[in-house]
Amino acid sequence: MLARQGIVDSNTASALKRAINELDSTLKIPEEIPEGVEDLFFFYEKQLELLVGEKAGSLHTARSRNDMDATVFRLYVRKLMVSLMKQMLSITKTLSDKIKRSREQLLVLYTHGQPAQVSTLAHYLSSFLLEFLEGLEGLCASMKVVNQCPLGAAAITTTGFNIDRQLVSDLLGFDRPVPNSYQAIVTSHWLTYPSMWLKSILNDITRLMADMGHKASCEVGMLIFPDKLVQVSSIMPQKRNPVIIEHIRIQSGMAAGNFQSLIDLFHNVPYQDVNEVADAPVTSFTRGYETFSGLLELLEETLLEVSVDKQRVNDIAISTGTTTTELADELVRREAISFRTAHTVTSAYVKSGYSFEALRRKFSELVGRALNMSDLELTNVLSPAHFVQIREIPGGPSASAMESLIHLIEERTEAIADSLFRLVEDVAESEKRLSVEFNGLG
Amino acid sequence: MLARQGIVDSNTASALKRAINELDSTLKIPEEIPEGVEDLFFFYEKQLELLVGEKAGSLHTARSRNDMDATVFRLYVRKLMVSLMKQMLSITKTLSDKIKRSREQLLVLYTHGQPAQVSTLAHYLSSFLLEFLEGLEGLCASMKVVNQCPLGAAAITTTGFNIDRQLVSDLLGFDRPVPNSYQAIVTSHWLTYPSMWLKSILNDITRLMADMGHKASCEVGMLIFPDKLVQVSSIMPQKRNPVIIEHIRIQSGMAAGNFQSLIDLFHNVPYQDVNEVADAPVTSFTRGYETFSGLLELLEETLLEVSVDKQRVNDIAISTGTTTTELADELVRREAISFRTAHTVTSAYVKSGYSFEALRRKFSELVGRALNMSDLELTNVLSPAHFVQIREIPGGPSASAMESLIHLIEERTEAIADSLFRLVEDVAESEKRLSVEFNGLG
Amino acid sequence: MLARQGIVDSNTASALKRAINELDSTLKIPEEIPEGVEDLFFFYEKQLELLVGEKAGSLHTARSRNDMDATVFRLYVRKLMVSLMKQMLSITKTLSDKIKRSREQLLVLYTHGQPAQVSTLAHYLSSFLLEFLEGLEGLCASMKVVNQCPLGAAAITTTGFNIDRQLVSDLLGFDRPVPNSYQAIVTSHWLTYPSMWLKSILNDITRLMADMGHKASCEVGMLIFPDKLVQVSSIMPQKRNPVIIEHIRIQSGMAAGNFQSLIDLFHNVPYQDVNEVADAPVTSFTRGYETFSGLLELLEETLLEVSVDKQRVNDIAISTGTTTTELADELVRREAISFRTAHTVTSAYVKSGYSFEALRRKFSELVGRALNMSDLELTNVLSPAHFVQIREIPGGPSASAMESLIHLIEERTEAIADSLFRLVEDVAESEKRLSVEFNGLG
Amino acid sequence: MLARQGIVDSNTASALKRAINELDSTLKIPEEIPEGVEDLFFFYEKQLELLVGEKAGSLHTARSRNDMDATVFRLYVRKLMVSLMKQMLSITKTLSDKIKRSREQLLVLYTHGQPAQVSTLAHYLSSFLLEFLEGLEGLCASMKVVNQCPLGAAAITTTGFNIDRQLVSDLLGFDRPVPNSYQAIVTSHWLTYPSMWLKSILNDITRLMADMGHKASCEVGMLIFPDKLVQVSSIMPQKRNPVIIEHIRIQSGMAAGNFQSLIDLFHNVPYQDVNEVADAPVTSFTRGYETFSGLLELLEETLLEVSVDKQRVNDIAISTGTTTTELADELVRREAISFRTAHTVTSAYVKSGYSFEALRRKFSELVGRALNMSDLELTNVLSPAHFVQIREIPGGPSASAMESLIHLIEERTEAIADSLFRLVEDVAESEKRLSVEFNGLG
Repeated sequence: MLARQGIVDSNTASALKRAINELDSTLKIPEEIPEGVEDLFFFYEKQLELLVGEKAGSLHTARSRNDMDATVFRLYVRKLMVSLMKQMLSITKTLSDKIKRSREQLLVLYTHGQPAQVSTLAHYLSSFLLEFLEGLEGLCASMKVVNQCPLGAAAITTTGFNIDRQLVSDLLGFDRPVPNSYQAIVTSHWLTYPSMWLKSILNDITRLMADMGHKASCEVGMLIFPDKLVQVSSIMPQKRNPVIIEHIRIQSGMAAGNFQSLIDLFHNVPYQDVNEVADAPVTSFTRGYETFSGLLELLEETLLEVSVDKQRVNDIAISTGTTTTELADELVRREAISFRTAHTVTSAYVKSGYSFEALRRKFSELVGRALNMSDLELTNVLSPAHFVQIREIPGGPSASAMESLIHLIEERTEAIADSLFRLVEDVAESEKRLSVEFNGLG
Repeated sequence: MLARQGIVDSNTASALKRAINELDSTLKIPEEIPEGVEDLFFFYEKQLELLVGEKAGSLHTARSRNDMDATVFRLYVRKLMVSLMKQMLSITKTLSDKIKRSREQLLVLYTHGQPAQVSTLAHYLSSFLLEFLEGLEGLCASMKVVNQCPLGAAAITTTGFNIDRQLVSDLLGFDRPVPNSYQAIVTSHWLTYPSMWLKSILNDITRLMADMGHKASCEVGMLIFPDKLVQVSSIMPQKRNPVIIEHIRIQSGMAAGNFQSLIDLFHNVPYQDVNEVADAPVTSFTRGYETFSGLLELLEETLLEVSVDKQRVNDIAISTGTTTTELADELVRREAISFRTAHTVTSAYVKSGYSFEALRRKFSELVGRALNMSDLELTNVLSPAHFVQIREIPGGPSASAMESLIHLIEERTEAIADSLFRLVEDVAESEKRLSVEFNGLG
Repeated sequence: MLARQGIVDSNTASALKRAINELDSTLKIPEEIPEGVEDLFFFYEKQLELLVGEKAGSLHTARSRNDMDATVFRLYVRKLMVSLMKQMLSITKTLSDKIKRSREQLLVLYTHGQPAQVSTLAHYLSSFLLEFLEGLEGLCASMKVVNQCPLGAAAITTTGFNIDRQLVSDLLGFDRPVPNSYQAIVTSHWLTYPSMWLKSILNDITRLMADMGHKASCEVGMLIFPDKLVQVSSIMPQKRNPVIIEHIRIQSGMAAGNFQSLIDLFHNVPYQDVNEVADAPVTSFTRGYETFSGLLELLEETLLEVSVDKQRVNDIAISTGTTTTELADELVRREAISFRTAHTVTSAYVKSGYSFEALRRKFSELVGRALNMSDLELTNVLSPAHFVQIREIPGGPSASAMESLIHLIEERTEAIADSLFRLVEDVAESEKRLSVEFNGLG
Repeated sequence: MLARQGIVDSNTASALKRAINELDSTLKIPEEIPEGVEDLFFFYEKQLELLVGEKAGSLHTARSRNDMDATVFRLYVRKLMVSLMKQMLSITKTLSDKIKRSREQLLVLYTHGQPAQVSTLAHYLSSFLLEFLEGLEGLCASMKVVNQCPLGAAAITTTGFNIDRQLVSDLLGFDRPVPNSYQAIVTSHWLTYPSMWLKSILNDITRLMADMGHKASCEVGMLIFPDKLVQVSSIMPQKRNPVIIEHIRIQSGMAAGNFQSLIDLFHNVPYQDVNEVADAPVTSFTRGYETFSGLLELLEETLLEVSVDKQRVNDIAISTGTTTTELADELVRREAISFRTAHTVTSAYVKSGYSFEALRRKFSELVGRALNMSDLELTNVLSPAHFVQIREIPGGPSASAMESLIHLIEERTEAIADSLFRLVEDVAESEKRLSVEFNGLG
């Protein structure tokens, strides 16, 4: 770029090119920076000087370690984010498939720790998947903030040289240059925005784990896992401890702590170029990334392998009366009575210990005529499967409602995948172009 | 909607309409819920029953307190968010105007607490404004998550009645129904997403305050405020304490704490319908909102009223040699020497106590010929105004670079304003339509 | 004190005394501070001036609003802390009594969400009580930091007047003056130390709630509550939702957030007199206090009313084989075989579906002789009650081990109660003495 | 202990002793746990079995991996805490010495970012030292919670074997066994209590850094550092950037984040044996420890090397009128006028631009007679040195007041040092005793 803009003459440019090529193949990065050299940057410049003499300095024209650092860190964070987003997309696909396969698998869902209503594993998992997608979409949006190029900001105010920031940004696969040079050096957003999204996603994961842990506990036993995900007591074969869930909870808490600390780090820090946007926090981001990535693997395995114990679901559904609200609704629809009356009739049925006789008696008493439904019809209305099938309006667990939901999920997943794919392509493209430009320096 | 869908017959619907109208004009909400009535909801239903008898129950068809609560809370959070976003837009406009007016006002910017380079007040403030806009854009995006309608989710799995969730969503000014009914009741995102954005924006504000506080301190004295924003000591007229900055810092810390606590509240909470998405956290959100709104007023005043002490800026700029890097750059450009050589020459100049003689001597010594610049030219190159003018590449502080930046800021502001305006319009529209629908019930 | 030290003459002192007495009975604190008066302090001084003229100013000798504020805030925090500590002591006593009454009530305890071993309600609750006491002891220790008197620090460096800080400290019931006058004004510890302890105690409470919630869930059902603490479904009498536990969890999370935000507020705040130690944070401390106090009431009720469902405990204890490790241990002791051998024998017993026959067979096979225990002996060894009784070493659940533990708890509770009682007495004493001193001013 | 208590016979005990000795000298811990072996513990037991056969199992009598883990982690945390406490004591001594040497070094102290009053470096540093000691005392107190022995708790309820928990606790240098066996396994306090104290101390350090950074900035320039602690610009010799202060701030923020995350990790975690008290959090504690330890070194260096620029202090003290309040006080004392009158007179003096003439005029006007002080007396009263000398009451900066304060600091430091020394001795003693016991096994 310096050559293109006429800032560095072509002789110097090609000398630098040759020297850089040579250093690429010969230079060994020393374990420790030699005495008297401030940092790796100066070490490299010195090596360059040995090869091309005074011209080495030209490479640093219109540049500062400030904008170089900011750029390198953003490239690095971008790489980690791409990696996490790919992994999250993979989970999204795993989970989508799982949802498709589990639309008929009934599951009792809870409110405030109590069995509430019958639904399906697909309905439950798709709820979480939507949370997960909202987090991923947020992360995707924060990539727009991260993927801006600080180069050309120099120390903080750009430079008097007529450099081409757009070209440099393009060659490094950035969306665009950071629009204000001071912001380019000073902002924390490339670190704090991904951190806050990752923390948010992790918090959602802890919620799912708390709930799945309960559903998989030996007393509830509706969710089951294959042996490989379960710690089995050598002495107590009936104890099947889904430790994987506990591990995900802890790793989520640890990683969330890492990301939270990066946000809190900036509280009351002067709006200047500060070392809070330097090595130490980036290292901590890496730690959070590694923990997060590890637990995502566990999460994918967990979601892939979890299945439902039909018998337990049916037992809990029936014994806790989770389908009786549907009986009340059906009475409203069929018998054209008010919701409160239907509720009273149903209540009498439950209190009697599920006696149809009691139900019919209460109905006659309140409505003044006999109930128009056979025992078989009543039984059918009260069945868990019916409870699910009849919930056909958008958002519900029935097959038809789930159809649209799955479609929506696929659309949104595709949008994210497209955007990520384009980014990865752009970066690859820019690397090629950079190489061409560099080799073209004569 | 219940009438439209044939779930409630038209007689019942019009009876309910009349009763609701009557209660609207006559019912007094009691200070305390009477003994034996569980909550305000049941109290209202009882009053309705006194007027229309058993039919009152029909109003609750296909509805649950779960989805009603979730809806009311989202409407409320939406209202507070709209209010904050309007206030933030107002600051954005104030700040844009200020930036336009202060493009020529030089200001020394710092790195790591030390004077670094000359820029302008406009360049500095526009950097913060971009941070602020990024936060506001994030908040705007989170509105898409908040502004979804839970109604129709009923308890957690929708209902067997053929209700029209889209219509209800439209009549309440929502973007769309929450796509999954379980998520509609269980998600924390309508509370945690705005919270995390507001916390992030507040953190940015604490950074600006830490920096402006330093620039306005009596020893630095580059930023000044009118008397009304300053605490003047009755005994020490020269002490002008910009307490407003300290107040903004503290209020930001307090509000950030409020929003952070709402995020942390959900750690390890079961992914079920829980009371964490109920009154207590919403109250806490309100507190954060009030504090935030209050400090935004102070912030707007601060940004509007701050001005620059030209003399102090010039003194600091010159005495700390913040323009000498420009001399080095100019030597590179005019004299076609490498950056390192120019740096050494400039360094000799600074160490000599700013003697042009020493500069010329070093130049001759290293380059082997006399320097081609007059003293006047050198003085001009070293002037703070020149330092700014020559930084014309995008992102820099020169008038031309700022022109494009202001344009970009205006574009982005308009996009946010449009989106907010459309939302406010939609809500107003939906209220009218709701009223028409209701009155049309015969 | 000013009169005692000869700083103010006795005429002035008695005039001030009379004026203050008059204002005490006549002055109404205005809703709003009148125009032109900076704050309540100046308003009061003005009223005093109307009564005694120029002498009013003498009252402020050797005093500053800085040390007055710091003192008033500490007195206030001390009052709230005393109130919380009393409430916590009350819970401690309730819980001690409960523990004494529940030493025989068996309870299955869990590890990693799985039933692990039989213990007693007393053993379980005493574990939590020890956590609670550790927190209360910490809070007590932090009172030593809070209960120091800032007065005499004046603005930040004391005064040239020969005041008696010890006397003032004594008259206000403080332990001692803050040893360094700068620290007296600048420190955050009187706010942050109690906050961090209260947050820690609240975190412990969330852990207990998560665990008790599980033990009280309808699937586990070992812990039961009376009707008044349970939300009963009108339609589903068997659903008994212990909402109180959820409420405590949420309130704990909210209050913990309040206290945490007070700690985080001070991050990177200059070590100077700052407004972070002023009204706003103290208000937030009050909110945390109120929420905490409210949930402590719920907690006391919960711990008082919880009881054990013996049958469920026995069922879970037996069906999950929680006592079989005791069989292995008994084999080691009686039959002098190694732990691993005993473990293998026991394992064979469990895998056989609890057949003594299988047990005897495996024993003979491995040890080379018949097992020396009758079926009755085996049954007894495997009984939950035996499992508890034999755990007699310190820290265990047996009656004798619990005896010492209860003794220890009582000793520690008494130490806290004594220290709190002494503080309350000292404060009452100092108030009397202050009144005597004041009235003695002639 | 097992042998002493007759739980393991003497033959087995001595066989185990010999085998353990052999393994100590020959066993290599493998990089990876071999396939089929669950963890390091089982690996070791297997090796033991190869040497002594079935008896190897006896070693595990009355023991569980639960209490073994809990014990090892506490021993480890104790070691790290001792190390940090030693380092903090070292800083305390460095700072005490510094304080003694800097009692005459005047320094202007600030309130709300403005110069307020003159004091000394010793007064300022001793204020921080008291904060630091309060933190260290808290950490010391939390050692009492950490240094309790979980062994004998077995899984969670102790054991039926008659083991001697007190002996084991003594042999490992613990204060005492954890009093309740369930708590021994379940509590988080050995991790969260030190964490919360370390976070609190770190927060105090960030406050000091924010303030020292300001006092050392080039515009204020009252605090100065030797070259080795300062980043000097090669080109701008007058810029002396105390980067060490920024580094301490960042490292403090990072370490505080580590410790905070350990506290937050436990929010809503069931009060059971959970993996939150296992490897992952302990690793994170180690990271926080390392960062903390590193920054304590920087802090010690900073406090040791900081000095005062007398001329700058005097300039700021005089030019901002920081001593004029003393003039007002002196007028009250000498001339027996009220504080408000003295204040008005002094105010006239300041507003006149420090003219004694104006002062005398105002005095006569208000008091009705001439002022009884010569110009020399006035000058003396207004001198910074006098301002400090006259502040002789406890807590103030004068030499005599500092004398008592230094004494107090030494007493408190000694108390901490004694307690730490005793702990270290006890641990060393117990190690010897353990070795004797072990070797005595025949």
